[in-house]
Amino acid sequence: MNALLTDLYELTMAAGYFAAGKHEEIGTFEFTIRRLPRNRDFVLTAGLHRAIDYLLNLRFEAEEIAYLRGLPNFRNAPAGFWDYLAEFRFRGDVFAAPEGTVIYEGQPVLNIRASLIEGQIPETYLLSAITFETLVASKAARLAHAAQGRDVVEFGTRRAHTPEAGVLGARAAYIGGCAGTSNTLAGFRYGIPVMGTAAHSWVMAFETETEAFRQLQQLLGDRTIQLLDTYDVLEGAREVARLGDPLWGVRLDSGDFLESSQRVRKILDEAGLQHAKIMASGDLDETKIAELLAAGAPLDAFGVGTELAVSGDAPSMGAIYKLVEIETAQGTRATAKHSPEKQTMPGAKQLFRFEDYDILALHDECAPQSEAMLKPYVIQGSLVTELPDAGAIRERARAGLAKWPTRDRHMEISHELELLTARIHGA
Amino acid sequence: MNALLTDLYELTMAAGYFAAGKHEEIGTFEFTIRRLPRNRDFVLTAGLHRAIDYLLNLRFEAEEIAYLRGLPNFRNAPAGFWDYLAEFRFRGDVFAAPEGTVIYEGQPVLNIRASLIEGQIPETYLLSAITFETLVASKAARLAHAAQGRDVVEFGTRRAHTPEAGVLGARAAYIGGCAGTSNTLAGFRYGIPVMGTAAHSWVMAFETETEAFRQLQQLLGDRTIQLLDTYDVLEGAREVARLGDPLWGVRLDSGDFLESSQRVRKILDEAGLQHAKIMASGDLDETKIAELLAAGAPLDAFGVGTELAVSGDAPSMGAIYKLVEIETAQGTRATAKHSPEKQTMPGAKQLFRFEDYDILALHDECAPQSEAMLKPYVIQGSLVTELPDAGAIRERARAGLAKWPTRDRHMEISHELELLTARIHGA
Repeated sequence: MNALLTDLYELTMAAGYFAAGKHEEIGTFEFTIRRLPRNRDFVLTAGLHRAIDYLLNLRFEAEEIAYLRGLPNFRNAPAGFWDYLAEFRFRGDVFAAPEGTVIYEGQPVLNIRASLIEGQIPETYLLSAITFETLVASKAARLAHAAQGRDVVEFGTRRAHTPEAGVLGARAAYIGGCAGTSNTLAGFRYGIPVMGTAAHSWVMAFETETEAFRQLQQLLGDRTIQLLDTYDVLEGAREVARLGDPLWGVRLDSGDFLESSQRVRKILDEAGLQHAKIMASGDLDETKIAELLAAGAPLDAFGVGTELAVSGDAPSMGAIYKLVEIETAQGTRATAKHSPEKQTMPGAKQLFRFEDYDILALHDECAPQSEAMLKPYVIQGSLVTELPDAGAIRERARAGLAKWPTRDRHMEISHELELLTARIHGA
Repeated sequence: MNALLTDLYELTMAAGYFAAGKHEEIGTFEFTIRRLPRNRDFVLTAGLHRAIDYLLNLRFEAEEIAYLRGLPNFRNAPAGFWDYLAEFRFRGDVFAAPEGTVIYEGQPVLNIRASLIEGQIPETYLLSAITFETLVASKAARLAHAAQGRDVVEFGTRRAHTPEAGVLGARAAYIGGCAGTSNTLAGFRYGIPVMGTAAHSWVMAFETETEAFRQLQQLLGDRTIQLLDTYDVLEGAREVARLGDPLWGVRLDSGDFLESSQRVRKILDEAGLQHAKIMASGDLDETKIAELLAAGAPLDAFGVGTELAVSGDAPSMGAIYKLVEIETAQGTRATAKHSPEKQTMPGAKQLFRFEDYDILALHDECAPQSEAMLKPYVIQGSLVTELPDAGAIRERARAGLAKWPTRDRHMEISHELELLTARIHGA
């Protein structure tokens, strides 16, 4: 039921390409990060798993076709178009940067070579699926970097734009460097470590905080994390100290984390609970985490929800999906938009990565000693590269992030690509 | 497959409530808009349809239970808990504000009275489902208000946080006042008007812009909207003028909309195309729309994507879901959090709406001549109120927005609720 999950104009154009006899022409469509969000120097890619799954399963059901036939846009669509749609499959090629790849502004992350219709229809889905997971993975990388080796746990499903986005966000956050997630389905589906103990409701559900804490210890043993701020943080900490082990630690969810973590640390230490950890959660982002650690807050782990789940300071990004080349009976023609501020570079491309710089070139150029970042995933509609699991992607990301990427990285444009661009833009 | 779509701590607490013999105790959980986003005076509710659907279908599959049993959190869970989960259904009551209701800061939008476990598990899903759609509906209301009767079309699926969120966002945007959406699946599923003609790829796919425009006219007739900015806006407008009717109008997607709309209008008018409309799209929000109209831009319709799909200036909101009351063998006990800045008000509540003010009261109070905003939807696990379709919800919203809501609306707290709150917070 995904074929209608696209903008109507993609389907309108499909009918138009068919009517104009252009549906057999082959186009190359390029997914590019045109503009990074203000607050980002790079992005970490994620979401390819869904893009591939979507393409491999793209088909129109009879009731979907019936719905389209009833829309005024298709009043003049040729009858053959409906038979075409009923048989429609994605039979093109997909080259893409693997998930967990560091990508800079102006770089392509995926290209599709397929018939015009097969390349056009997926635009909407691919932009959404890849951009969203990429934004969350990138935010997670920043959070993990700020936490300097301490665990950051993804807590954001309740703030995600739909619960289902929370599951995918949890996976992306793990790829980006989070230690785990609170989202149980993400654990079940993707094998990601899941974490979580108790909320304020738990504490309030018992007559006394002591009883609530005791019951949790009984259930969780040395995995117990007591939530301190339902009534009074320091009183809660003293209660934890009185109860002693077993205990993993405590969680602070409101107030001044610097002051309260120091005072709670003292209470725990004086009770001989030096091993007990302190986790903070509630309205955290990478800036606050860095500030708390710089100020010496004795915090061992962080839970991040809102800011991570919606990439709060950059909830969207200027990713585009454009026709860059078309192969007609008359030969191959490079294409580009000339719109002011929104010009695109023509031609099917490849991104070559060297240790300290990248080269953006035409897809049939070579750059020895470099890694070609867009790799074949689907050829003629069939998967040719097995998709790695979330753990392996996380490792790839970790390697790419080890030397923390900055905005000053250099990207060269190959001579061939420069010539082509100048010719198409009429310079 | 939705039972695991929750934070692990909800399930951990469920096991704990069971172990403590508290799973038969009845709690009331309240979903409240604790804090409005900075840029909002009110929200327009949406998302209840999914909340209800989720609750009515909530159950654990055998493989989901097997997964949970393998997690360390449940090592000490009593054996009876797994049988309990296998039989688990939501059998509680749901009272909620209908979709399309104007809600102000500090007001409840939903409450659930159910066994502690039945009330606890849904927290994560309900917060996400309702908050997201509410944010988009609220943003749409602002956009439609700024457009002063001109059509605003939702174009944002490509920027939504997952394509599926785009479908739900399209519905929410329609409820909030958008004229329609580009999302085809939203049309198919919810009966919302769908709109969309052609992208830059269409223009580039033909040898010349003229050919692309001609082909589109042939397909769409008087629904044709020509996209002008692939190469040069004014050249494109002159081309449209030469081709003449049939034509709905043109779309501008980049550049200075004020200047270009005025120049394009002139070109169209001089060609006798006074009836042709001009639509603008691309990085629009309510402020830009208001500025363009105030400056006299001859724009007839707007397409809004990014800012609407992710509620760009307010991508999240401080909605909370808290235990406010618990009924044990010893009687009913009101509950509340005391955390600084995050105090909650105890007791199961009702929101009474008068023409010019609201009263927040305990659920068993009365307020004659007012409308009780939280209405029964589910009683003892069964749906008791049929859910209206998107069109009817949009009408409800329109009535509520007719007198444009402002932040200065007064909300009184009933005497009973004030007394209870003072008692619980120990004042």
